[in-house]
Order: sequence, then structure tokens, then C-alpha cells
Amino acid sequence: MRSFRNKKQEARSKRQEARGKNLSEADIIKKLKRVERAHPAVIRGIGDDCAVLKSLNKNEVLLCTTDLLIEKIDFDFAFTDPYRLGMKSLAVNLSDIAAMGGAPLYYTVSLGFPRELVGDFVGPFYRGLRRVERKFNVALIGGDLSRAPSDVFISITVLGKAQRDKVVYRSGAKPGDLIFVTGTLGGSATGLRLLKEGHRIEDAEGIIHQALRTHLCPVPRVAAGRWLAEHKIASSMIDLSDGLSTDLHHLCEESHVGAQIYADQIPIASATRALEDAPLAAALDGGEDFELLFTVPENNVKRFRQSYPFRKPPTTHIGHVINWREGVQITYGDGRQKKLLPQGYDHFKT
Amino acid sequence: MRSFRNKKQEARSKRQEARGKNLSEADIIKKLKRVERAHPAVIRGIGDDCAVLKSLNKNEVLLCTTDLLIEKIDFDFAFTDPYRLGMKSLAVNLSDIAAMGGAPLYYTVSLGFPRELVGDFVGPFYRGLRRVERKFNVALIGGDLSRAPSDVFISITVLGKAQRDKVVYRSGAKPGDLIFVTGTLGGSATGLRLLKEGHRIEDAEGIIHQALRTHLCPVPRVAAGRWLAEHKIASSMIDLSDGLSTDLHHLCEESHVGAQIYADQIPIASATRALEDAPLAAALDGGEDFELLFTVPENNVKRFRQSYPFRKPPTTHIGHVINWREGVQITYGDGRQKKLLPQGYDHFKT
Repeated sequence: MRSFRNKKQEARSKRQEARGKNLSEADIIKKLKRVERAHPAVIRGIGDDCAVLKSLNKNEVLLCTTDLLIEKIDFDFAFTDPYRLGMKSLAVNLSDIAAMGGAPLYYTVSLGFPRELVGDFVGPFYRGLRRVERKFNVALIGGDLSRAPSDVFISITVLGKAQRDKVVYRSGAKPGDLIFVTGTLGGSATGLRLLKEGHRIEDAEGIIHQALRTHLCPVPRVAAGRWLAEHKIASSMIDLSDGLSTDLHHLCEESHVGAQIYADQIPIASATRALEDAPLAAALDGGEDFELLFTVPENNVKRFRQSYPFRKPPTTHIGHVINWREGVQITYGDGRQKKLLPQGYDHFKT
Repeated sequence: MRSFRNKKQEARSKRQEARGKNLSEADIIKKLKRVERAHPAVIRGIGDDCAVLKSLNKNEVLLCTTDLLIEKIDFDFAFTDPYRLGMKSLAVNLSDIAAMGGAPLYYTVSLGFPRELVGDFVGPFYRGLRRVERKFNVALIGGDLSRAPSDVFISITVLGKAQRDKVVYRSGAKPGDLIFVTGTLGGSATGLRLLKEGHRIEDAEGIIHQALRTHLCPVPRVAAGRWLAEHKIASSMIDLSDGLSTDLHHLCEESHVGAQIYADQIPIASATRALEDAPLAAALDGGEDFELLFTVPENNVKRFRQSYPFRKPPTTHIGHVINWREGVQITYGDGRQKKLLPQGYDHFKT
């Protein structure tokens, strides 16, 4: 219905546009058209009722994921800005494609925002999208715009592809597999806490800057995810959006297995280690690190260790897959063993 | 990140669920899983980081469209209910697929809603989706849920397919082509006016009931759109979401043509004709009828008229495509001719 349109509208005064007032939907679309990039498989992008896309090869599958970001729930303009929000909105969706071992191809973005934000919000938001879009070579193919009564609402859908016999699901883990994560954990939670305490990324340095960056502009692990899939290294994979403790449960439930992880081996972000009273809890339960959690069958481990080609992100062995009946366990350095409860993020739990 | 998940959670008391209080995201997902249907081309639907879909045939293209519906802007719970809102949310997206001559295949739905609506909203909303889903044989493949501070947000993305050489764009109209619309116009605008005046669909009869239905539960013209594309009848097509006057301009701009339409020939909905002071204006500028506007080259007209197989929707010849320089014109019964201004819906115009 109200998809992005490529209208040739009557000329409007530049001053009016500069003030960002009285922008029509068509004016906004015009801004978006500047963001659209040529992509060889896009037959028709923005400007019709639907985008039209070339079919994939027969041995490829289409991946589709969607994410919702709502002001005051998922982000707060006291802590972020439209540019960084644009970057993050696309990045978190690319992370889902990464978690299947896929390559992202296209995306749509639907935006609802109060009229008074038109001038200040749309331009920088799309510049943020564009920065991530270029880095990962994805193409904007459509979307929708609506006024909203008070809060900004962002819905992004990403389409990607993968080799049919190489897609990595949450459900492939087997007892005996080793459990790994990419990067470090807890940085996003610590970053959010620092923002709430008044730190700003413009003024921050060192590990504080790192933590703020992890929270505001997470990097989706697309190359690592694709490599793990294409080389048939990982037996299962998920991205860490809700927090390790919760997402590990998701993976175990889908694979019908249990897990044993070692507290000592969890790679904790430097800022989390230095600044949190309970760094391990922040690393286990803090969400939005967007690292990959994956399992590797023992037979693949040597090949994995010898051929993993990336300096960043590093990968860390944090545990083993065990039998379903044994549940999800964490072992501490002193030998104590506890049930690991899923204490990450849930939108509706009270 | 927070895509629909197929968690096997600890059992929760039925009473708690019945009260609709303290539902976790997982509980809601469980409700959604009940809505999910088997579809032969869906390799993995709800329950992983992405949906995984079989590739299309080489001569087919993928269609992708997305729509945003925001409470107080696009709908109002004073006038509609979650069930009918579910129906309409999916229907308006299917209408975009219809406008390309495509067949809808899959959809995702992202929902943001205040916590207190969890119990009353989610169930009936998904039953409404499901009703339309079944009628048009589309499969729910994923989505996202988020709390929202005050208003309900709905974002739906639909994927469909079409034969590559048969997709109908907005851009194919040529001077001399005849302009047609399906169904009748103005009914949705009149329906909305009647709702604002206090009419309710439960109590309404006859033409009032019809108008309320057009507004609350529009029927996407999927079969007609596909037929027009598959038989290579239409040279261009668009669905009427913003109103004939505005959408005709969209089509003309994309095709770089002008149009001449005849006021006498516009098929006006019965309720609009009977109850509006200015029925023609309502038919021209009232949005959300979700009928198809399409052009037919003169050479195809005879074949079109002889073989169009549907009793519903009827199609009506309302004008001709003319040269771009002549603009978009309307001719009245008394011979007066005027420029037709795009006075339909724009989200951001003041």
C-alpha cells in the first residue's frame, strides 16, 4: 500500500526542505532513493508495489529474518542518535543471517515516527543504514513510512541466501560437540550501564569507548558465520541477542540436548571485567552482544582450529554439549556446579 | 534477534495463561506456533534465527512487499477489533502482491504492543491473520514481538512469486491503453465516516454493512491480478491504497504518461453514492479500497472482455492513457474537463 515511491513531484523550495518541515511522503522517499544502490539481482527495487528479485540457484535457499526496534523499549534517544540507531537496526538483522551461515542480500525498512522528527531523524538514520549496507553489500529494496503518535518504531526485514546443504540450524548440536563463542561477552550490557551513568561515546576512551561501541554499533559476525557454514565446521549456531544464558537454552531446546559450560572460560569483555561488580553475570545474562554461539563436533575441531582464518573475531571454547536429561549446567573454577538459568532478556516477563 | 522461538518452556498454569497476565515471549510464541501451517517450500519456519525457504524456479521472480500499521494513525480500536485488524493487516500486503500479478507465498509479522494488551490482543489478532492466510494459501514464516510504550505497531512483510516475463509493473502504460478498475470505489472512505458517526458492523445491514466491511476487511484482488498478469492482458497495474486520484498519478509518473478519466464512468460504491454529499470526491480521493487500477492495450481489450473469468470483482473501463505532457485529466458528464489533483492520503503532508 504505502510502499516507497519514486515520485517526480513538483519542485519544493530548498529552504523548506532544509528546515525539514512539511516534508511529504514523496520528499522522504526521494531521500531514500539516494540511498538505493544498484544490485545485479534486483530487477525492481523501490518504486513499485513490490520489489522484484531474481530467483536463486536451485541448490541455494532463501533466508528471511525480521526485527523490531521500539523507542523507549529497545532504544532511547538519550543514549543513541539516529545515525547509530540506523547502523544497529540493520546490524542486528544481519546477525540473524550470520547465525544461519548465510550471506545477506536485500532488506526492507519500515519506519513510524512523529511528524516533528521528520527533518532530524530520517537523513542520519538512513546514512547509518547505508554505512552498514555498504560494508555487507546488501541492497535496500523497499519499505513503508508512517507517522506515529509519539514513539519511533523500526521494523527491518533481511533476505539472504545460503547453500541448501550447508545452512546451520539451532537444532544440529549433538552430545560430545564442543561449544564455542566468538568475541567477548558482557560488553553491550556494560555499555548500556555506562550510558545510563552519563558516559557518552564522543568523550569516551579505551575500554569504556569499546563497551559503548559494542552497545551502540554491534558488528554482526557475517564472515565468521559464513565460514563456519561453508566449511561445514559448526553443527549448530545461534546469535547472542538475549544473552548467553538464554540463547544457550534456545539452542539446547531446539537440538534437544543439554550443555556444560565453564565459568572460567567465558570470554568477558575488558570493560565488563574491569567495571562490573558481577562481571560473569553480565557476560552470561547481558544481551545484545551479537556474537555467535556455535557447536563443533569433535571430529571437526582440529580442522577448525587449524584453518579458522580470521584474526577478529577470535573464538573461545566455553563448554560441551551433553545429554538433554542433564540440562544446562555451569561449572565454576572451584568445582561448584549449578544449573544455568535463562536470565537474559524477555520482552513480556514481569 | 528476538525472532519467534519454539521454546519448550516449563509448564505454566493454565489459569495464569487464561488470565493473559505474565505471559512471557515464549508463551506468546507458543500461541503463534499453533498458527503456523505446513508449506511444502518452507524448509524451516518459526523457531530459528531465520526462516529457510526453497528457491524458486529459474523463470520465476521473488516479490517482496512490506506495510506498517500504527494505532491512532492507521487504525483505531474505537472502530475495529484485533480480529478484523489481523485480517486487514495481511490483506493490504496481499493487495501489493496482487498489483504485480503475483502469487503470495509467505509472510512475517512483527508486533509491538503494550503489556496490558497481551491477553486480549494476540489471540484474536492471529485468528484474523489465519483466516486470510488460509483463504490465500500463504504461510507465516516468522516475525518479532516487542513491548511498546503505548500504541500498537504492526509490520507485515509478504513474499510472493511471479513468472519473470509476466510481472506487471506500474511503468508499462502506453498512450492509447484503456484504463480499468476492479470493484467499486469510495466504500472504504464512507465506511470510515460511518464508523466515526457511531455505526458498528455488528448492527449494520445492507449498504452500510457493505461499506463498513470494505473499510474493516478489504478483500485483496489476488485472483484478478494474477489472471491479468498470466494472460498478459494488463500493461501496467497498481492497487488503490491512497485513493484513485493519487494512485493514478503514481502509475502515470512511473509510466511517464498522462491519463484521461471520465467522471461518469467511475464505479462508485452504493453506500458512497447514497450517503455522501460528494460521492465522486469520495470515490476519487478516498483511500483503502484496495481495488486494482490497470491499463490494457487496445489490442488486448477484446480478448480481455471475452475471457475475464470472474463474476467478482467486476471491472470497469474508466478512461484512457494519454501523452505525458497532457497530464492527468478528468472529464465530467457536461463536457467540462479539469486537471485531476492527487488528493488522496499522504502520511506527512500538513
